[in-house]
Amino acid sequence: MHKKISSLQNPLIKELVQLKEKSRVRKKSGTFLLEGQREIELATLGTYTIEKIIYCSQISSMEKIELLESNLDSSIEFLEVSKEVYQKIAYRETTEGILAVVNAKKHELENISFKREKPLLLIAEAPEKPGNIGALLRTADAANVDAVLIANPKTDLYNPNIIRSSVGCLFTTQIATGTTDEILAYLKKHNITSYAAALKDDSEPYQEQDYKKASAIVVGTEATGLSDQWLYNASKKIIIPMNGKIDSMNVSVAASILIFEASRQRNFN
Amino acid sequence: MHKKISSLQNPLIKELVQLKEKSRVRKKSGTFLLEGQREIELATLGTYTIEKIIYCSQISSMEKIELLESNLDSSIEFLEVSKEVYQKIAYRETTEGILAVVNAKKHELENISFKREKPLLLIAEAPEKPGNIGALLRTADAANVDAVLIANPKTDLYNPNIIRSSVGCLFTTQIATGTTDEILAYLKKHNITSYAAALKDDSEPYQEQDYKKASAIVVGTEATGLSDQWLYNASKKIIIPMNGKIDSMNVSVAASILIFEASRQRNFN
Repeated sequence: MHKKISSLQNPLIKELVQLKEKSRVRKKSGTFLLEGQREIELATLGTYTIEKIIYCSQISSMEKIELLESNLDSSIEFLEVSKEVYQKIAYRETTEGILAVVNAKKHELENISFKREKPLLLIAEAPEKPGNIGALLRTADAANVDAVLIANPKTDLYNPNIIRSSVGCLFTTQIATGTTDEILAYLKKHNITSYAAALKDDSEPYQEQDYKKASAIVVGTEATGLSDQWLYNASKKIIIPMNGKIDSMNVSVAASILIFEASRQRNFN
Repeated sequence: MHKKISSLQNPLIKELVQLKEKSRVRKKSGTFLLEGQREIELATLGTYTIEKIIYCSQISSMEKIELLESNLDSSIEFLEVSKEVYQKIAYRETTEGILAVVNAKKHELENISFKREKPLLLIAEAPEKPGNIGALLRTADAANVDAVLIANPKTDLYNPNIIRSSVGCLFTTQIATGTTDEILAYLKKHNITSYAAALKDDSEPYQEQDYKKASAIVVGTEATGLSDQWLYNASKKIIIPMNGKIDSMNVSVAASILIFEASRQRNFN
């Protein structure tokens, strides 16, 4: 029998709502809230540690819960909540009745292990919009890049909108964060050529570069592009030739065009 | 002196709110609401006809309004509204104080004129999410495709969220809509090879195709992909090789990878 909570005033429930809503609370506790069975399974595959499962038997089925329990480590606490309580904690409108409290990862550069001798990295500087970060992670998964590096992060990665828009790719992709200084030093140390996407007169056409060597594609924000620090210190500045009247491209679209050109040159290996 | 309205009860104001909110009202009147000076200028460049300008001198400056008036056809009516009225009609939160009622285009296939001897088209079947449609139009502008064709449209193109997310590319790109039957007949008539993006076993790698001939890239929705009608009738089925764990790609990202591979093969001409 699992413990059951049906009061919205329960301190744990209040804590979970805070965990959903506040980045500060996520950072302090080192945990985040994750919704949905598939997402929980992907997080487990991605070597995340589950702390607690919270479920609502009025929304989910006990069969599902029992199956999940048998698949997870037996030390994980299961907690049943009423429908009213569940809906207060849950983020999605159409939900499955299963939530987890999960330990956040530290995302340190030194923990990255390359999949290939000549790695392919995607670097995003200070991305802000959760939807763009989610789309970048989907592209990173699809192209099976070695890692995504986030320079000077503005948003905590466990923001519910990032989790949702990444459709689980947050858990399948190696991610590290760091300052631009740290990441530039990391690239130098590992002898990785960096290609900064920049709408500059002296940028070279992206399609004329050789991405078969150890490479990193670097993108900035849609609003301001890359910082001067990246523009000066990247190995090369590259540009996607555009021939339209407006020539504005979504940052995740631009990153995907560049990453898949690199994949194409590498014969998708 | 322009006529001034400061009552929220004014019938014209009620009409404008409806025009913003209801696709049905836009269809019936053959007009739509457009916000912002830059967007209005782009629509004019895109040979759209402006019916009326509605402005708020408390938000915009009279200088701006007078400049706009001198640049536009003198038959266009200018209407001043109070701040309260303006905010009721406006869609954006941070707004410029200038709106226009614009005549919709019919988007007929026979009105498309190709820019190249061997045109490059982007076809989207039944796209639904305004953000995705906006992103597709941004890619279409950046790649300077000959036209975007929308098969079995589900959303009216003048939905405020499409206008906004297209950042004006709705007005710089030739767009036609039609049933899948009509578009298939059109492709046949113009001898255009169609490449249907499909996650199928017998799809061919996209990077092994020749897009230098007259070509159309065809994408479906993210949720269900292309209909059987497209899968059976397209010249070829193509796939983007993916090597991730989730292999899910945003539809506008996938379309961009395909369109820019075609552009690359055509040396961006």
